[in-house]
Amino acid sequence: MNGAESLLRTLLDNGIDVCFMNPGTSEMQFVSALDRVPAMRGVLCLFEGVCSGAADGYARMTGRPAATLLHLGPGLANGLANFHNARKARSPIVNIVGEHSTQHLSYDAPLTADTALFARTVSGWTRVVASADRVGADAAEAVAAAIEPPGQVATLIVPADFSWSEGGAPGGAVETPVRRPPAAERVREAARILRGPEPAALLLGGRALLARGLAAAGRVTGRVFANRYAARLERGAGLFAPRRLPYFPEAAEEALARLKHLVLVESPPPVTFFGYPGRRSCPAPDDCQVHVLAAENEDGTAALEMPAASGLLETAPPARPALPAGAPLTAETAGMTLGALLPEGAIVSDEMVSSGEGVWPHLAGAPPHDYLPVTGGSIGQGLPVALGAALACPDRKVIALEADGSGMYTLQALWTMARERADVVTVIFANRRYRILDIEMRRTGAGQVGPRANDMLDLARPHLDWVRLAEGHGVAASRASTADEFIAQLRDALRERGPRLIEAQLG
Amino acid sequence: MNGAESLLRTLLDNGIDVCFMNPGTSEMQFVSALDRVPAMRGVLCLFEGVCSGAADGYARMTGRPAATLLHLGPGLANGLANFHNARKARSPIVNIVGEHSTQHLSYDAPLTADTALFARTVSGWTRVVASADRVGADAAEAVAAAIEPPGQVATLIVPADFSWSEGGAPGGAVETPVRRPPAAERVREAARILRGPEPAALLLGGRALLARGLAAAGRVTGRVFANRYAARLERGAGLFAPRRLPYFPEAAEEALARLKHLVLVESPPPVTFFGYPGRRSCPAPDDCQVHVLAAENEDGTAALEMPAASGLLETAPPARPALPAGAPLTAETAGMTLGALLPEGAIVSDEMVSSGEGVWPHLAGAPPHDYLPVTGGSIGQGLPVALGAALACPDRKVIALEADGSGMYTLQALWTMARERADVVTVIFANRRYRILDIEMRRTGAGQVGPRANDMLDLARPHLDWVRLAEGHGVAASRASTADEFIAQLRDALRERGPRLIEAQLG
Repeated sequence: MNGAESLLRTLLDNGIDVCFMNPGTSEMQFVSALDRVPAMRGVLCLFEGVCSGAADGYARMTGRPAATLLHLGPGLANGLANFHNARKARSPIVNIVGEHSTQHLSYDAPLTADTALFARTVSGWTRVVASADRVGADAAEAVAAAIEPPGQVATLIVPADFSWSEGGAPGGAVETPVRRPPAAERVREAARILRGPEPAALLLGGRALLARGLAAAGRVTGRVFANRYAARLERGAGLFAPRRLPYFPEAAEEALARLKHLVLVESPPPVTFFGYPGRRSCPAPDDCQVHVLAAENEDGTAALEMPAASGLLETAPPARPALPAGAPLTAETAGMTLGALLPEGAIVSDEMVSSGEGVWPHLAGAPPHDYLPVTGGSIGQGLPVALGAALACPDRKVIALEADGSGMYTLQALWTMARERADVVTVIFANRRYRILDIEMRRTGAGQVGPRANDMLDLARPHLDWVRLAEGHGVAASRASTADEFIAQLRDALRERGPRLIEAQLG
Repeated sequence: MNGAESLLRTLLDNGIDVCFMNPGTSEMQFVSALDRVPAMRGVLCLFEGVCSGAADGYARMTGRPAATLLHLGPGLANGLANFHNARKARSPIVNIVGEHSTQHLSYDAPLTADTALFARTVSGWTRVVASADRVGADAAEAVAAAIEPPGQVATLIVPADFSWSEGGAPGGAVETPVRRPPAAERVREAARILRGPEPAALLLGGRALLARGLAAAGRVTGRVFANRYAARLERGAGLFAPRRLPYFPEAAEEALARLKHLVLVESPPPVTFFGYPGRRSCPAPDDCQVHVLAAENEDGTAALEMPAASGLLETAPPARPALPAGAPLTAETAGMTLGALLPEGAIVSDEMVSSGEGVWPHLAGAPPHDYLPVTGGSIGQGLPVALGAALACPDRKVIALEADGSGMYTLQALWTMARERADVVTVIFANRRYRILDIEMRRTGAGQVGPRANDMLDLARPHLDWVRLAEGHGVAASRASTADEFIAQLRDALRERGPRLIEAQLG
């Protein structure tokens, strides 16, 4: 078999059977091999950022990697922003990038670039294959690197001649690494702090935000915070609800005020999203000690199930919101509608940006669901992550909550949703503005927003028509301008299977 | 003044008065300063690849840089593919990237990344500003680096605290470098070779492909080739027409067969686009000597105006094609229509991919126009380059000839065209397929295309509706399925000012 086939077989031997791809000439052997390796599912995306974002969403929901297949350095370049988000989500991804054949690389052809340099910006592991008979073995090493806890992007660059040459051999299955619980001494120390006389709290990230970790945390203490940029949070009725650390530094500082100890479980220390003039980047008090109960590559859930965990578990969620009949359509009334109608087991991909705070509280009382937030802050992850989650969990309804500004970075995801009949309802929160920047402009001390500055935040000239954009990509769509319209359209969309888009025109 | 304002003033002092931008929080000071520095025109793009591609188009038409303003490493990441193309076009661009404030960078915030590493993938010059009072001086150095012949992308990374701090001072105007003609000895040697008994030809790139260089080349010899990946070619009735080197290696080899000497003028040596099994990457014969008359940073036109240039200038172009009334709509009949209707002084941005060869010959007899081809081969440059060219040359009609596959990478360019009332007629050559890959699949020896491989080249499931996509972005659009419809719609579009899109559904 040739190198390309040996690579696909290696991925399959490791349980990787989905590949989000946008191939070109240097990847034709991989495409051709799909017919000889039918267990590998190729998912075509029309822009590479959709591939990388979808692989991120897939990994967040399964804990396992999907593969991506991209075309040379410049094709990889288009995937980097969502690989950055995947990197911050600690998502395992095996990223295959085709390269010019080795003899061609000595010429400065138009597409020639430093592919490995592109790769290193986002990859925890990067390798350029050195011979055809190494493709399978290197692919196995890429898998091992990707799934090494807590997970990372592993990029394997494959020159075309090694793909087309015979002599390939599958690299075999690699061992699945086990996340270890932290040493008993660390658990005892954390328990002592959390039960001690000084104000102390937990900050959870990683897999500690799934149901079992949350339940264990809730038995340890009532003071539990969630890292708002962690990959995935289980949420809703019956689940212990940690408090999400606020976005703006003042509110985050207020949330952590008077704490003497902050105990981290699979989370980096807290940090504000941006730095601002005269304001600290860490929202914890200066005299608050930060302790690590479980590092990001450890088993934080096992650590939380410590003998000390004997407290009462408080899981009474807020009541489910009522439908806001007759109301104007705002982030809040859209949130109430979502909270009232969200089906059990739904997966919510959130890139609402400025509308997010209005929606967030209303989902607390909905049936149990998964919530996939912004992780790396690079705009354009919401729709691709929803696509990947839908392919990972075909029996669950996915809801992409997206801003009109953010959605425009990777709107091509809609086409793949239509092609794969992905069960995704996309809601575009259309305020026709980079609204968050109105606030950030003031916060960074940039002063009065004059008319020319104002123009750079404005999405209303011309009007972005999301119904036509969706239909152009093959996704049925409608527009809601009142809460009643939104209720009716969302009900309708949830009743059917397959992709739908609702443009929620906020008043 | 603060650092941001000192930067904008430095750009203006150097004649850079257009900035294609997609700013975020770390760039708010630049946005705010637009009202204090009103001579700087901010052009908002909804995706960073539109910014970088538009700056490329602007530079190709003016020979001067535009600025780009992007948000942190991940925002820069989205611009890299079109910066790659700009790099290959030798386009001067001053790329400003905001960075977290210096104290914030010591934390691993969501958007924190190695911004300089992203920058180095495409930039000939990269610098991170080290203090607020250096912003202006560093900006001046960035300008100097960008315009150093033959031109490059210069990236200046500006931490937010240096933008918002007072103490900035403009860096002043830098000297415009002069392109030198090559040494007289090299000119004499080239003349001896070109007039000698052995078969010899010129290969032109860079500015030698503008009217004056072409006329001079045509007086030296009748055997003149054009580098098909050079930034800009002046073409049409009355201009000397070099032969464009073919895309596929067999045809390129045939074109150069039997040559003993190839004399380069502002062009790298010829190379095929891709490498293929058992085929050489350089299409020139093995025993063909390659000589450099003018390097890419030299004045090739002056070199061509050598005393030896005494031949008869052959400028009789093919006749203008007739309108293909009653014909089916194909790349050929669309090309005939374009050749028949193209207005004088038009600017053609070509990213037709597989449809290109059908259109190309029919534009030869059109009135003089500029032709902007693919340079770096990274798909998604056609619409942004057209946008940038339109802003560079507001009195000229721009025609973007785009494939349906390629257009999808940066379709957001349509919104900025509508916003800026850019005078661009976009023609989408819709064959509902990555057609070029059908050919490349065969060429790379990937064998029979099975149904699953075939599916990865298919854009018909679901149908991409370019009329709705354009309207969604605020651009009026129509669909043509016959040559007559295309003729009528193109006539109509050329008569009006402002953006229009025609989806040419090829039979």
